[in-house]
Amino acid sequence: MPGSGYVGKLGADHLIDLFKAKKVAEYMCESFPPQVNVKDDGTAETPRAELYFASLKKSHDILVFTADAQPTTSEGEYELSDAVINFAKRIGVKTVYTLAAYITGAFTSTPRVFGSATPKTILESLSSKGVTIMKEGGISGMNGLLIGIASLRGLEGACLLGETSGYVVDAAASKSVLDALSKIIGTPIDTAKLKEKAEETQKVISQLQSLSAEQAQEEAQQPRREQRPGYIS
Amino acid sequence: MPGSGYVGKLGADHLIDLFKAKKVAEYMCESFPPQVNVKDDGTAETPRAELYFASLKKSHDILVFTADAQPTTSEGEYELSDAVINFAKRIGVKTVYTLAAYITGAFTSTPRVFGSATPKTILESLSSKGVTIMKEGGISGMNGLLIGIASLRGLEGACLLGETSGYVVDAAASKSVLDALSKIIGTPIDTAKLKEKAEETQKVISQLQSLSAEQAQEEAQQPRREQRPGYIS
Amino acid sequence: MPGSGYVGKLGADHLIDLFKAKKVAEYMCESFPPQVNVKDDGTAETPRAELYFASLKKSHDILVFTADAQPTTSEGEYELSDAVINFAKRIGVKTVYTLAAYITGAFTSTPRVFGSATPKTILESLSSKGVTIMKEGGISGMNGLLIGIASLRGLEGACLLGETSGYVVDAAASKSVLDALSKIIGTPIDTAKLKEKAEETQKVISQLQSLSAEQAQEEAQQPRREQRPGYIS
Amino acid sequence: MPGSGYVGKLGADHLIDLFKAKKVAEYMCESFPPQVNVKDDGTAETPRAELYFASLKKSHDILVFTADAQPTTSEGEYELSDAVINFAKRIGVKTVYTLAAYITGAFTSTPRVFGSATPKTILESLSSKGVTIMKEGGISGMNGLLIGIASLRGLEGACLLGETSGYVVDAAASKSVLDALSKIIGTPIDTAKLKEKAEETQKVISQLQSLSAEQAQEEAQQPRREQRPGYIS
Repeated sequence: MPGSGYVGKLGADHLIDLFKAKKVAEYMCESFPPQVNVKDDGTAETPRAELYFASLKKSHDILVFTADAQPTTSEGEYELSDAVINFAKRIGVKTVYTLAAYITGAFTSTPRVFGSATPKTILESLSSKGVTIMKEGGISGMNGLLIGIASLRGLEGACLLGETSGYVVDAAASKSVLDALSKIIGTPIDTAKLKEKAEETQKVISQLQSLSAEQAQEEAQQPRREQRPGYIS
Repeated sequence: MPGSGYVGKLGADHLIDLFKAKKVAEYMCESFPPQVNVKDDGTAETPRAELYFASLKKSHDILVFTADAQPTTSEGEYELSDAVINFAKRIGVKTVYTLAAYITGAFTSTPRVFGSATPKTILESLSSKGVTIMKEGGISGMNGLLIGIASLRGLEGACLLGETSGYVVDAAASKSVLDALSKIIGTPIDTAKLKEKAEETQKVISQLQSLSAEQAQEEAQQPRREQRPGYIS
Repeated sequence: MPGSGYVGKLGADHLIDLFKAKKVAEYMCESFPPQVNVKDDGTAETPRAELYFASLKKSHDILVFTADAQPTTSEGEYELSDAVINFAKRIGVKTVYTLAAYITGAFTSTPRVFGSATPKTILESLSSKGVTIMKEGGISGMNGLLIGIASLRGLEGACLLGETSGYVVDAAASKSVLDALSKIIGTPIDTAKLKEKAEETQKVISQLQSLSAEQAQEEAQQPRREQRPGYIS
Repeated sequence: MPGSGYVGKLGADHLIDLFKAKKVAEYMCESFPPQVNVKDDGTAETPRAELYFASLKKSHDILVFTADAQPTTSEGEYELSDAVINFAKRIGVKTVYTLAAYITGAFTSTPRVFGSATPKTILESLSSKGVTIMKEGGISGMNGLLIGIASLRGLEGACLLGETSGYVVDAAASKSVLDALSKIIGTPIDTAKLKEKAEETQKVISQLQSLSAEQAQEEAQQPRREQRPGYIS
């Protein structure tokens, strides 16, 4: 789902490309933003959510869920989550993983991966693969609801949250999350493309930080008002 | 639909007048603003959406959709769009054109017409008639949804957006959009009345601009706080 | 309905008391505010809308609609209006009058009554009884919707709006509206109690105004910051 | 329900613990916040409302309602209240008590208990047990709706509101409310644990107040800008 830093969205799209997954279902939702999105070929499309299927060699098959938008109402989020989990259950999915962002407000070169899951038994497998288990807080939006409703429907669910500043589209956080997922499901996931993208972003951040440092020096001599880093995408 | 600059609303009402179209359907929507509008004869009416039908000599018949208001919720916009497209499909409509505003924030005497469409094949015909094809962004509200849902229901859809400042009721933009539509569907559309209306608006803008220029001069000598052009209707 | 100056609510409650009308229907609405109101005997009640019936000697019977609250969503206002009009139509109501406020922001001792109606034929009877016919604008909320939906269901509808400042619970405006209604339906309506209440309010306003005048004088000598008249109820 | 000072939530959870009540029903609601809450064992759960049943020795059996969240829409609050009251009625509940907060903005060491009820006959029993009967105002949210809808379904309903500042999680207010409930239903309710919790909170308040007093002294010598007490939980 599109969200902070596009951590989950980048990850899901990467899986679809990497495993050449095929679209098997499409959802339109009355609480999606009422608009069409114009694509670079000039055509327009209503926002939609999609399920892609791929057969993996060394593990279970996977079903990847991705969407152009999040529903704008609670009711919409519950209904879409419910529809997706029902579909997944019907075709035999056992475990639902959602990929999300864990926002810290600070830049880091080695993003950690946080996690929460249900039932409790999955937590040990997450923990043994380097995932930091959350002890409090909430996971809002569909990344949370999908595992919550999965649990109510008798499926296992885990949310993996990549540490991110929240200021940039963060391919490094996506990479960390997919690396963790790879270990958990025991299937190699090639994240080279995300690494490239992360390095480009890192360059921009470094430039901004050195610029910031210069400004800080200037300001030390000549004090000014509060400044916040901008939003880079 | 009433929207920025009334570009689409002026255009649709002009088509209804010009072709003496007859009302064939009327929609009330629970997410329209809960009120009645008082007309100049003293009577009051709930907001409604209407479909008008006209038989044209040199082209296909046309069905014109116009409304007093936009639904105030996503759900309402999806439902109304769906109802209109279903009606249109049932009576044999093949292509849906929506007339919208492309807001630039700047005044222009020769407004361009932008467009997006689906399927891709229509884009060439738009482009060959002078329409600038959009490559990104979104078209919000029913002007977008109507073509998006048309596409989901197997109809062709194109949105024509007239360039407008967004500050005035812009008959010039409506005229540009109808001129483009005229070329695309191969039917003459007399836009003389819109031209008159556009010229009146142009006079007001010119007066405001010369006034603005005077103020700018004064301010050059005596600096003041930020000023924004007002909304003229 | 409770609204600006309680013009309509005071009027409706006055009719119920005066004609000893009996409750014949009660509505609960999921978009009423989610709360109970505590009454002066200590009991609590969910907000509700009510229909009261009275048999008048010299005119048609009347059905009076009143409510503790307005629905908080468009959908709720449409649904409640629809339910009430359907009930009214079923028991034979021919004309729906709604009592509303026409807010001017200024105090007046002789409040005018404005009106809008549908179909057009009713307007002449309103006009001949001293009602000023509106030529533009809108009537928002259920006072508008009720006559709009009445019209869609084949009933006649008229909204009478009493001129009010909007700053006080305005029994004088309610009185004007009921006096006009009395002439229109040709039935005496004793408004002595509303007159008393209006006179009390008038005293408070006069005191406030003389106080204001003193302050204005003081301020003329010693300038201060902006002041707005408070809300008296 | 979670609300101001958690007065009701603490009280309900205390009853469940004290009487070892068993869960008999669980509700999910589409207007609950769309998220999962992470618990201290690392697992995640969608917000839910729950009904617990306990058999008491010296009084009627009790059914305790508690929830992780309040619905975020009016519709949701009405629907959930309705579902709970219907369940309660079906299994034979005669009287519904809701536990709420009466916010005063000031700290008190001996919180009063306010009440409203329906039908009127219950008020005397409340009053005779030291509950101050409310004469005006409203009780918003599910604590109000539950007794309002109970009344519409033919059950008795009373809301007990513990006086609280609104600034702290207020176990002292919860204790007062449960002490009143104990007298009303004629069953001992051991509130020792709430008393302990209240004493801890009281210490923090005392420290804050003495700190505030010192600040006030400093400010008397050196005036500063407005300060509001923070929210402690």
